[in-house]
Amino acid sequence: MNQQTLHQLLSRVAAGDVAVDDALLALRSLPFESVDDFATLDHHRSLRSGFPEVIYCESKTPAQVAAIAARLAERSPRVLGTRASAEHFAAASQLVPDLRYNELARRLWLIGNPAPRHEGVVVICAGTSDLPVLEEAALTLEMMGHRPQRIFDVGVAGLHRLLPHVPTLQNANVIVAVAGMEAALASVVGGLTDAPVIAVPTSVGYGASFGGVAALLAMLNSCASGVAVMNIDNGFGGGHMAALINQRIVKKD
Amino acid sequence: MNQQTLHQLLSRVAAGDVAVDDALLALRSLPFESVDDFATLDHHRSLRSGFPEVIYCESKTPAQVAAIAARLAERSPRVLGTRASAEHFAAASQLVPDLRYNELARRLWLIGNPAPRHEGVVVICAGTSDLPVLEEAALTLEMMGHRPQRIFDVGVAGLHRLLPHVPTLQNANVIVAVAGMEAALASVVGGLTDAPVIAVPTSVGYGASFGGVAALLAMLNSCASGVAVMNIDNGFGGGHMAALINQRIVKKD
Amino acid sequence: MNQQTLHQLLSRVAAGDVAVDDALLALRSLPFESVDDFATLDHHRSLRSGFPEVIYCESKTPAQVAAIAARLAERSPRVLGTRASAEHFAAASQLVPDLRYNELARRLWLIGNPAPRHEGVVVICAGTSDLPVLEEAALTLEMMGHRPQRIFDVGVAGLHRLLPHVPTLQNANVIVAVAGMEAALASVVGGLTDAPVIAVPTSVGYGASFGGVAALLAMLNSCASGVAVMNIDNGFGGGHMAALINQRIVKKD
Amino acid sequence: MNQQTLHQLLSRVAAGDVAVDDALLALRSLPFESVDDFATLDHHRSLRSGFPEVIYCESKTPAQVAAIAARLAERSPRVLGTRASAEHFAAASQLVPDLRYNELARRLWLIGNPAPRHEGVVVICAGTSDLPVLEEAALTLEMMGHRPQRIFDVGVAGLHRLLPHVPTLQNANVIVAVAGMEAALASVVGGLTDAPVIAVPTSVGYGASFGGVAALLAMLNSCASGVAVMNIDNGFGGGHMAALINQRIVKKD
Amino acid sequence: MNQQTLHQLLSRVAAGDVAVDDALLALRSLPFESVDDFATLDHHRSLRSGFPEVIYCESKTPAQVAAIAARLAERSPRVLGTRASAEHFAAASQLVPDLRYNELARRLWLIGNPAPRHEGVVVICAGTSDLPVLEEAALTLEMMGHRPQRIFDVGVAGLHRLLPHVPTLQNANVIVAVAGMEAALASVVGGLTDAPVIAVPTSVGYGASFGGVAALLAMLNSCASGVAVMNIDNGFGGGHMAALINQRIVKKD
Amino acid sequence: MNQQTLHQLLSRVAAGDVAVDDALLALRSLPFESVDDFATLDHHRSLRSGFPEVIYCESKTPAQVAAIAARLAERSPRVLGTRASAEHFAAASQLVPDLRYNELARRLWLIGNPAPRHEGVVVICAGTSDLPVLEEAALTLEMMGHRPQRIFDVGVAGLHRLLPHVPTLQNANVIVAVAGMEAALASVVGGLTDAPVIAVPTSVGYGASFGGVAALLAMLNSCASGVAVMNIDNGFGGGHMAALINQRIVKKD
Amino acid sequence: MNQQTLHQLLSRVAAGDVAVDDALLALRSLPFESVDDFATLDHHRSLRSGFPEVIYCESKTPAQVAAIAARLAERSPRVLGTRASAEHFAAASQLVPDLRYNELARRLWLIGNPAPRHEGVVVICAGTSDLPVLEEAALTLEMMGHRPQRIFDVGVAGLHRLLPHVPTLQNANVIVAVAGMEAALASVVGGLTDAPVIAVPTSVGYGASFGGVAALLAMLNSCASGVAVMNIDNGFGGGHMAALINQRIVKKD
Amino acid sequence: MNQQTLHQLLSRVAAGDVAVDDALLALRSLPFESVDDFATLDHHRSLRSGFPEVIYCESKTPAQVAAIAARLAERSPRVLGTRASAEHFAAASQLVPDLRYNELARRLWLIGNPAPRHEGVVVICAGTSDLPVLEEAALTLEMMGHRPQRIFDVGVAGLHRLLPHVPTLQNANVIVAVAGMEAALASVVGGLTDAPVIAVPTSVGYGASFGGVAALLAMLNSCASGVAVMNIDNGFGGGHMAALINQRIVKKD
Repeated sequence: MNQQTLHQLLSRVAAGDVAVDDALLALRSLPFESVDDFATLDHHRSLRSGFPEVIYCESKTPAQVAAIAARLAERSPRVLGTRASAEHFAAASQLVPDLRYNELARRLWLIGNPAPRHEGVVVICAGTSDLPVLEEAALTLEMMGHRPQRIFDVGVAGLHRLLPHVPTLQNANVIVAVAGMEAALASVVGGLTDAPVIAVPTSVGYGASFGGVAALLAMLNSCASGVAVMNIDNGFGGGHMAALINQRIVKKD
Repeated sequence: MNQQTLHQLLSRVAAGDVAVDDALLALRSLPFESVDDFATLDHHRSLRSGFPEVIYCESKTPAQVAAIAARLAERSPRVLGTRASAEHFAAASQLVPDLRYNELARRLWLIGNPAPRHEGVVVICAGTSDLPVLEEAALTLEMMGHRPQRIFDVGVAGLHRLLPHVPTLQNANVIVAVAGMEAALASVVGGLTDAPVIAVPTSVGYGASFGGVAALLAMLNSCASGVAVMNIDNGFGGGHMAALINQRIVKKD
Repeated sequence: MNQQTLHQLLSRVAAGDVAVDDALLALRSLPFESVDDFATLDHHRSLRSGFPEVIYCESKTPAQVAAIAARLAERSPRVLGTRASAEHFAAASQLVPDLRYNELARRLWLIGNPAPRHEGVVVICAGTSDLPVLEEAALTLEMMGHRPQRIFDVGVAGLHRLLPHVPTLQNANVIVAVAGMEAALASVVGGLTDAPVIAVPTSVGYGASFGGVAALLAMLNSCASGVAVMNIDNGFGGGHMAALINQRIVKKD
Repeated sequence: MNQQTLHQLLSRVAAGDVAVDDALLALRSLPFESVDDFATLDHHRSLRSGFPEVIYCESKTPAQVAAIAARLAERSPRVLGTRASAEHFAAASQLVPDLRYNELARRLWLIGNPAPRHEGVVVICAGTSDLPVLEEAALTLEMMGHRPQRIFDVGVAGLHRLLPHVPTLQNANVIVAVAGMEAALASVVGGLTDAPVIAVPTSVGYGASFGGVAALLAMLNSCASGVAVMNIDNGFGGGHMAALINQRIVKKD
Repeated sequence: MNQQTLHQLLSRVAAGDVAVDDALLALRSLPFESVDDFATLDHHRSLRSGFPEVIYCESKTPAQVAAIAARLAERSPRVLGTRASAEHFAAASQLVPDLRYNELARRLWLIGNPAPRHEGVVVICAGTSDLPVLEEAALTLEMMGHRPQRIFDVGVAGLHRLLPHVPTLQNANVIVAVAGMEAALASVVGGLTDAPVIAVPTSVGYGASFGGVAALLAMLNSCASGVAVMNIDNGFGGGHMAALINQRIVKKD
Repeated sequence: MNQQTLHQLLSRVAAGDVAVDDALLALRSLPFESVDDFATLDHHRSLRSGFPEVIYCESKTPAQVAAIAARLAERSPRVLGTRASAEHFAAASQLVPDLRYNELARRLWLIGNPAPRHEGVVVICAGTSDLPVLEEAALTLEMMGHRPQRIFDVGVAGLHRLLPHVPTLQNANVIVAVAGMEAALASVVGGLTDAPVIAVPTSVGYGASFGGVAALLAMLNSCASGVAVMNIDNGFGGGHMAALINQRIVKKD
Repeated sequence: MNQQTLHQLLSRVAAGDVAVDDALLALRSLPFESVDDFATLDHHRSLRSGFPEVIYCESKTPAQVAAIAARLAERSPRVLGTRASAEHFAAASQLVPDLRYNELARRLWLIGNPAPRHEGVVVICAGTSDLPVLEEAALTLEMMGHRPQRIFDVGVAGLHRLLPHVPTLQNANVIVAVAGMEAALASVVGGLTDAPVIAVPTSVGYGASFGGVAALLAMLNSCASGVAVMNIDNGFGGGHMAALINQRIVKKD
Repeated sequence: MNQQTLHQLLSRVAAGDVAVDDALLALRSLPFESVDDFATLDHHRSLRSGFPEVIYCESKTPAQVAAIAARLAERSPRVLGTRASAEHFAAASQLVPDLRYNELARRLWLIGNPAPRHEGVVVICAGTSDLPVLEEAALTLEMMGHRPQRIFDVGVAGLHRLLPHVPTLQNANVIVAVAGMEAALASVVGGLTDAPVIAVPTSVGYGASFGGVAALLAMLNSCASGVAVMNIDNGFGGGHMAALINQRIVKKD
C-alpha cells in the first residue's frame, strides 16, 4: 500500500463509499502492507546505489544462480554475481545470454549502464597475488558508476615504489587498500593521506597468515586513523563501501 | 497510534471534520507511530513471559542501574538485574527499597508476583562450583511463575549419584543442565531422557577450560539429540528459555 | 531381565524350584541385565520421539552405512542418515530398496509413518545458501510427525521481507532459525516473538566467518532472550529439538 | 626545507654567496629535510582533519601523558587523549590547566575550536552499556567540527524502538553504529539505509563474546553491504573515520 | 541394597515371609538402590586409590570448602583440597583443626595415612617457576602412598644438567614431567627412557605462551612416544595418574 | 664404547701398550662415542618396547617410506608405518614383500613376533566413526605383545550400552578410551574405574568440533581423575602408551 | 637524481646556465625523483644480498609467474620462485629455458652466479618430513653465495643422534633449525651453542599441531636465548635471514 | 673432568699409581662428569655472550629471586633479572646491595663489566608505549658489551619521521624493531635495509590486538625478507639475539 492507494482509500471514506469500519479493517493490515513502501524505498536505494541485489554464488548450485540471475535480469539492466565458478557462469549464461564472466575476480555480471564517470576513488594493492580482490573492488565500483584509479605492485617492502603515488593518494576522495600477509600497506597509506581508507585484507599468505587473519588483525589495529576494515577477500564489499562514500561526495558537484 | 485513535481519525474523515489530505499526512507517519502497536504487543509479551525488561548490570554504573531499576519498578511489580555487584545493589536499593539481592547468583530483583506454581522444569548441575549459575536459572524460573526442581552434586565422575534421579529427568517437561569443565553432564542427561535439554556451560575450570570454552564446545557437540546450548554462565538465559517452553506446555492444562 | 522374568524367578524361589543361592547368583548380574530395561525404556523413548537411532554418515564407509541402515530397517519403519553422500546412498539403497535420498539436505531416509500432522513449528532462514540446513531441520520434523511451516529469503539486510511474517512467528509454538554469516536473524526473530527459538548457525560465509564460527558466536550472544543454539550446520539437531518441544505442547491438545 | 628556503638557497648559489659544494652538502640532506615538507603537509592534514596528534594513554605513565599533552597544547588549541585514566588526567591537568576529562569515555581533551557545525553524522548504539564507546565517537566528531546526532537504546531485541529512527538513518551522510554482544544492530541499520556505516564492536558481553570478538566477527560478516568495521571499542577511530567522510561531503556545500 | 540384604530378601521369599509381589515391588527399585553397590565399589576404589574425594576449591566460597572438608574428615583420615587460597584454609582449619596448608602448591590437606613407601615415580620439572605444580603432583603422590623422587632445575636450555639424571629416568616406573614455556622437557625425557611419561604443562611464560597453551600443544605433539598429557597446571591430576599406574606395578611386588 | 672396551683400553695403557697421549685422543671422543652406548641402550629399549622406530608416513613420499621401511626390515622383524596411504604401501611392499596394510587404520606393518599374549588392556570407543583410531591403538598394542580387549558402540547417549562392560573396565590394567564429538566417554569411563585411562580424542564431528578440538578439550578437562590425553587421532600413541604401562605391570607376573 | 647529477645542476645554476626558477622546478620533483636513488640503493642491496626479487608463486597463475620470471631473467642472472608448482615451472621454463626446478622444495630458479663459497651456516632438521623446508633454506643460502652444512635425522626423541653434531653447532656462525610437531629441536640446539639460531617451524604433524602452530608457539617460547622465529614452512626466509647474518660476518675475513 | 684432569688420570694409570679398576670406576661416571666439560664450555659461552644465567622473575617469589641473585652474584659481576617487580628488587637488593632496578623495563641488574663499546646495533620502536620493551632490549645489549643506537617515535602512521633515519638503518649490523598494534614498522624497516631485523612484537594495543597477537602475526608474515621474530614483549630476547649476531660481526675487527 503506497501513498497513492492510501489516498484512494481515504477519498472513498470521505465520499462515503467505504464505511469507517471497513477502512479500519483495511488499515489494520497496514503495518505489514505498508512494508511494501519499505520495499519501494529499498528499490529506490538500489537504483541509487547501483544495482538491486547481489548474488552470493559460493554456496548455491549453478541452477539456483542461473534462476536468480534470470529473475534479476528481467528487472534491472545490471546483474552481479560474486564468488562465481565457471560452472555457475555456464548455467547462468544460458538463461542470460549477455552475461559476462571474469575468472580472476570470480564474478559474473550483466552491465547495461552508461560508462563509469565519477572520479575520486583509488584502489591499491601490494602484489600480483592480491589482484583478484582488487579487481573485484574495481569492477564493483565501475558497475556503480565510478571510475577507480588502479595502483598495484607497491608493497611496503619496497617503499620507493609507493612514494611516487603519494599525490594521487592525497587527492583521492576515498581509497580501497587491498593487502594480504602482514597488510602494512593499509597503515602506510593511511599515514600518507587524510582520505578515508577502506581496507580489504586478503587470504594471500601461508602458515601464520591463517587464511588472511594476520592481515585482518593488522588492519583492525592500524595505528593510522581513518582506516575501516572489510571481511577477508571481500573486494565486492570494499568497492561497494567506497562507491557509497564517493557518490555522496561527487553528487554535490 | 492504536486501533482506537485510528478509528477516531477515520470517523472524522467520514464526518468531513478532517480533510483527506490532512488525514493522509497523519497516516504517512503511521508506519512508525503504529510501532507503538508493536510496543503494546511487546508489552503483552512481557507480561506473558514474566517481566518487561532485564537489566544487564555488568557494564553499567551503579547510578545507571539504579535509575533503570527505579523506572522499571514504576511500571511492573517485577524487576530483575543480572550480573549485579554489591555496589549496583547498594545504589539501586536506595531508589527501590524493596529490592532484594542474591550475592551467589549476582542478581538483584523485586518480586511482586504470586508464588511460583508451574511444575515440570528440572535444573541440574554437577558440582558446588556450578551453583551460582544454577541458582540464576532457578530464580529466573521462579520469577516467571515456575517451580523448578533442583538437582546438584551429580557429576558424571560418580555416575551412581546421577542414576537415582533418572525418573525425575524422564518425567520433566524441560531440563536446564548446568556444567563446567568437560560438561559431560549434558550428554549423559540428554541420553537418559527425551525431554528437551537446555545446556548452560559454566566458566568453572582452569587451564584448557579456557573460561568455559571447553564446556561450551562439548555441549554443542553433544552426541545426544535434544540438547541446545546457551552462552557461558548464562543462567538467566537458560532459565528464561526453559520458562518459555514450559509455559507453553502447562498452559494447556 | 524385565519385570515378567523377574516375577517368574521370584515365583520359582517361592515355589522352592530355585534355591536362594542360585537366585542370588542370577540376581547379582541384575544391575547389568536390568540394563535391558533401560534399553526398553530407551526403545519406548525412540518410538515416542520418532525414530530409534540416526546414522551419522560422514566418517563412515558406504558399506558401514549400508549395513547399519539395513539392520535398522528391520526394526523400524523409519531410518534416517545425516550427512550422507551419494555413495552412501548408492550402497545403502541396494540393501534397503525403498530408501530415499535428498542431495540438498545430504540425507537418506526411509519413511513408513503416517503424514506429519502436528502444527506449531516454524523453520526460517535468511538466504538460499542456508536452504540445505533448513531442509534438514524440516525433514527431521516431518519424520517425527510435525508439519513445519517454512519461511526463507528473509535476511535482515532487507527487513521489510521479514515483517509480513511477524504474526506467523508470534503464533508459533517453537521456531528453528537458520542463518550463516553474522546470523542477526536469530536475534531479530527472538525479539519479535516470545516463542522459544532454536538457532542453527550455518557455515555459509567466507573469510572471517571461519566456517560458521561468527554465526555461532552471534547466536550465543543474542541480546534477545529465548534463543538456544545448536552446533554449526546441525539442521537435524535443530529439527529434533523443536520436535521434542512441540510434541510436549501439542500432546496436551 | 620548503619551497621558499629552497628558492633562497638556489638564489644564493646563483649570486655566488654559497659555493656549489656547500649547497651540495645542504641539498644532500634534502630528501630527508624535504621530509619537513611532508610534515608540513601532514600538519595541513592535521588542521583539516581536526587535531594534530592523538595521545593513546593506555600504556603510558601519567608523567608521559602530561608531558606530551603539554607539548601538543603549545602547538594547537586542540588536544585529545584516549583511554585516559583519572591519574592521567590529574597529571596532565597540572601542566595544561584547561584540560577537560570525561570519565565515561575515558578521554581528556582541550578544545579551542569553534562549536561543531557540520550536520550529517548519526551515532547509534543499542544499549546503555555501549554508551562510553558511542560517547568517544561523538566527542571525536565534535572536536573535528561535526555535530553528530545521537541515537541509543535501540537494540534489535526490540525492533520497534529502532524503526522510528529510520528516516534519520536514511538521511544521514554517514552512520557510526556501536554494538556489543551479537552486534546485529550494524546489519539491521545497514539494511535500512544506503548511507555508509562505520561499525564499532564493543567488548560489552560475557562468556562467548570473548571481549568483543563475537561482535567484531558479526560486523565483518554483515550481510548488508556498506558496513566497514573498526577495532573493538575503538570509538575514537569510528568517529574519526566518519568525520573524514563527512567533511568531504559537506565541504562541497 | 548389597548382596547381604538381597540374600535376606530372597530367604524371606523362600520362607514365605514375603509375598512374591511384595518382593517384586522391592526389587523394581533395585536398579537404583543397587546403585548403592556402585557407591560401595566406588568407596573401595577410593580407599585403594588413596582418598575419597578431592575438593576443587577455586570456584567455591571459604564457607563451602570448610563445610565439605569437615564432612569428608568425618569419613576419612585423608582430605585434599586443590587450588586453595589462604582464605579457604583459614575457614576450613577452624572446622578441621589438624588441616595443613602449602601455599606454594595452593593445597590444603589432612593426612592420616602411614608414611609413603612405594618407590618408582619420578617427578621432574625444568625451572623454579614450575615448582608449585611439581609440588602439587608430589604431594598428591605422597598422600596416595608413593615416595616420588624430585628432580628440578634441569631445563633443556642446559642439557648437561639433565644428563646426570638419565639412569634415574630409565629406572623409573612412571615419570611426571612438568614444564612451561615450550615444554621441550617432556619430549627430551620421553626420548631418554621407555617409562611412561605423564606430561603436565604449566602456565609459566608470557606473550605467545598463552597461559600454558604453547606448552600444552608441544606436549600433545611430542615426537617421543609414551607421553600422555594433563590439563595446564594440573599437578594434582599428574600425580594422581602416576599413582594409579605405579600402584598397579608395585602391588605385584 | 662400553665398559668392556673401556677396560681393555685402560689395561693396555697400564701395560704400556698404549701411550697416554694416544689413549687421551681416544677418550676425547668418548663423550660422543659413549653416545653409542646411549644408542645401544636405546636399541635395548626398542626391543623391550616392541619395535625400533615408527615411520610417520604422512609428509613423506612413497619412495622415502619404501626406503626407510626396507632399511628397518633388515634390522628388525617388526616394521610399522602410521598414516600410510595406499601409494605408500604400494611402493614399500615392492621392497618389503611381506609388508601388510590396513586401510581403515591407515597403517602398514611387518610383523615377525610371536602372538600377542599380555592381557589387561581395554580399548573402547563410542561409535563406528571412531573405529580407525581404535584399530590403530589395538594393532599397535598387538605388535608390542599385548592382547587388547575391544569394546565399541557404547556412546554415552545410550548409557545402558556401556554399563554391562563396567566389570571389564574395572578389572583392566589400563584403558584406551577413543572418542570424538564431545568425548564424554572418557569422563564416564574414568568415573567408573580406577584403572588409568589413556584418552584419545578423534576428529569425528563437524562444525564446532573443530577437527577434534572439542573432544581434546573435553578430555583435558575431565572431572574424573586418572585420565591423560594424547593428540587428536593419535591411536598409535594411545596404544603405545598403554603398552608401556601394561608391560611394566605384567612383567611382574 | 644522484649526487653527480645534483652537482651538475648546481654548477649550471652557479654558472648562470640554468635559471633559479628552472632549477627550482627540477628540484621540486626531487623528493620523488630522489626515490630513484632509493631504488638504486635498493638495487645495490639486491646485488649484495644475492638476488633482486623473489617470486612468491602460490597465488599467481602460471602465466603470471612465467612473465615475471622472464622479466627478472633479463635483468639478473639469478631468478628464484618459491612455492612453485609443476605447472608454474612448465609455463616459466618456456620463456626462460635454463630455469631449473626442485619439486621437493617447490622452487624454480635460474642460477648464474659462481659456486657458493661462504662457510659458517648450519641447516638442521629433525625428520625426513621436514626436508622440503630445510632444502628451501639450503638452496636459498647457496644462491646467495653460502655453502650451508646440512644435518638431519636428529630429532630430540633420540638425543644421542644429535650429540655428535654438537661441535659443528658450536662452531657455526649461524644456524637454521627446522622442525615440526613440538619443535623441541630449536630449544635443544639453542641450549647447546651460542650461535644465533633462526628457527623455522614446519607444518609437519596432525591434530593439535594445527598446521604448524604448535611448533611455532614452541619456538617463540624457547627457554634458550638466541632463538628467533620465521613463519611456518618459511624455509626461504630462514635461509635468507641466515645469509644476511653470515655475509656480514664473513665479509670481515 | 676436563682434558687436563683426564691426562693426569691416565698418567697415573700408566705410572701404576692408579689401578685399572679404580680408573675404570672413575671413568664410568665420565659420561656425566664429562658433562662438567659441557658446563665449562657453557661457562665459557656465558662469559663470551655476556652473562651466565638470566633470572626470569615473573613466576618466582621475591625470596626465590633474591636467593638466586645472591648465588649468581658470587660467581659473576653481571646479574640480570627480567620481569622483576619492585618487590623482587626490594628482596634481592638486601642480599645484593649494589643491585640496580629499572621500573620501566621491569629489570634488576648488577653490572660490573666495562662500558659498552661495540657499535652496530640499532634498536627502534614506534611509540612511547613500546619504550619498556625497547629499553629491555637496549639494556641487555649494553650488559653484553654493545652500544645500541636508540630510535623511537617513528611509527609508520607518520612515515616522514622514519625517513631521516634510513642511512642509520642501512649502516647497521643488526636492527631490533619493537612495535605493537599492527607492527608495520618491522616490514617497513625490513624493506629499507638489508641488515637482519630482529622483530619484537609488543602487547601495546587493545581489542583485536589480543595482547600482541596481531603484532606477532604481522611480523611473522612480513613481506620483507630478513625479519625474524621473538615472543611478545620479549625485549630481553631481542637484545640477546642481536648481541649474539653483532659480536660475531665485530669480533673480526
